[in-house]
Amino acid sequence: MSIEILGLTAGFLTTVAFVPQVIKTWKTRSTKDISLNMFLLFCTGVSLWLIYGIMIGSISIIISNILTLILALSILFFKIRYRD
Amino acid sequence: MSIEILGLTAGFLTTVAFVPQVIKTWKTRSTKDISLNMFLLFCTGVSLWLIYGIMIGSISIIISNILTLILALSILFFKIRYRD
Repeated sequence: MSIEILGLTAGFLTTVAFVPQVIKTWKTRSTKDISLNMFLLFCTGVSLWLIYGIMIGSISIIISNILTLILALSILFFKIRYRD
Repeated sequence: MSIEILGLTAGFLTTVAFVPQVIKTWKTRSTKDISLNMFLLFCTGVSLWLIYGIMIGSISIIISNILTLILALSILFFKIRYRD
């Protein structure tokens, strides 16, 4: 059980990490320094982590990757929308 | 075994995703649009994922988080070094 708490904390941090980036990008509408390829690859990878989490039955991986996907897709959307 | 291949592919993508960002930041030395808090939280979270991976014995999580940590720390270093 303490292992799942560690996993949930890890997932919480790597997920919550995207919140200040979403807020910053949403406020500034500036995405010049953000790599489009990074977020394309990242969103694809997170989608696969989600499937992996479902297959191995890790609730930490499932929950954190659903939320990370939503946040990373928001940044990807901003990057495409406010392209320089 | 195919589950671990899926996990390794997921880990490969979410890790490799940081490479174009590292290259972009290294080339431009511009980090204005990148959130410092994102990378502080992200590096902490990835460190915990690494410990989680070791504890549940997931080779996919271990390998991908070691590499992601190196890349994310590079971006964090650039962000602090080339602070606006």
